[in-house]
Amino acid sequence: MAGPSIDFFYEFASTYSYPAAMRVADVAAKAGVAVRWRPFLLGPIFADLGLTTSPFNTQPAKGRYMWRDLERTMAAAGLPFAMPDPFPQNSLLAARVATALPDDGKRAAFSRAVYRAAFGEGAQIADAEVLGRLMRGIGIEPAPVLVAAGSDGVKQALRASVEAAKAHGIFGAPSLVTGDGELFWGNDRLDQAVAWAARSA
Amino acid sequence: MAGPSIDFFYEFASTYSYPAAMRVADVAAKAGVAVRWRPFLLGPIFADLGLTTSPFNTQPAKGRYMWRDLERTMAAAGLPFAMPDPFPQNSLLAARVATALPDDGKRAAFSRAVYRAAFGEGAQIADAEVLGRLMRGIGIEPAPVLVAAGSDGVKQALRASVEAAKAHGIFGAPSLVTGDGELFWGNDRLDQAVAWAARSA
Repeated sequence: MAGPSIDFFYEFASTYSYPAAMRVADVAAKAGVAVRWRPFLLGPIFADLGLTTSPFNTQPAKGRYMWRDLERTMAAAGLPFAMPDPFPQNSLLAARVATALPDDGKRAAFSRAVYRAAFGEGAQIADAEVLGRLMRGIGIEPAPVLVAAGSDGVKQALRASVEAAKAHGIFGAPSLVTGDGELFWGNDRLDQAVAWAARSA
Repeated sequence: MAGPSIDFFYEFASTYSYPAAMRVADVAAKAGVAVRWRPFLLGPIFADLGLTTSPFNTQPAKGRYMWRDLERTMAAAGLPFAMPDPFPQNSLLAARVATALPDDGKRAAFSRAVYRAAFGEGAQIADAEVLGRLMRGIGIEPAPVLVAAGSDGVKQALRASVEAAKAHGIFGAPSLVTGDGELFWGNDRLDQAVAWAARSA
């Protein structure tokens, strides 16, 4: 249990969290690094900066570029991609459900299913029915998880994850934090982050 | 002359333009792609968005991260790195000088010298004396170039480059544009951009 690990901080409304979530487990496994799946919310962090929506919405040229860059990134990765509408989606319920699931493989499988639905199939991930269907698809009975997702304990755990993200200096998603506290931002830094975690353990 | 080419848009105050400028010629040469060196200014583009300084200054957590990420990037590239003070530097004169130089190797050599001085040695690149010293270091007599840099022709050429950047949808630096109009943003996309240019020619 003393092997290297990495904290993977992700937000279900975040575009580049999608390709990162789909590959982080494979990249880390090849390097002998364990992944801790840390769903969090960017909304409270953006709000601290006075931002009320995604920077991709307030800067049209940057937004247009991002969608094209994502198309290229997803095509190269062989992943389906459809622009979510609305963007960003409300990710609160999905983040609470992910937090309610144990980080023993179920949370990772659910998270990948949410990303594929949100960014690959245009699904509405704020909808409990949609999340229930995704859970059933990976063999999880949704009712008790949805109940747990509404509990004070899960709400507090998710708030603690947002505070942990802030404490690590996180300002965007995905972000990765190594055991020695090194922060890496973005799908573009995933491989470097995992290599750092493997070296510094 | 009908071989593939790529337009490399760079801003002397831009951090990630530094590692990109130091390697773009080598990466492109290996792929058989010619580089057009296009100095431009981000200031007028940021001003259109209502921004008065670098986003790295208005978002402290993002700024702190960027400096650390640059330290790692430069260490991996074997390049010297020192945080410029002030940041961003006033890059207008350097951009005019680069525009005044012919794009036959001299502009590229001068541009690399400016980046190394600005981000490797803490030099003040708004200073004509500093730019003169850099030109002498690569065998260019500075006086006529500095005179040309103040001419209406060069000022208009630089303004035209900013308009060309806007027309390509550019919102940051470095940016690369292929012959078929595909836009790539950032040092992280340099290799992909050159590969695209090589393929699409």
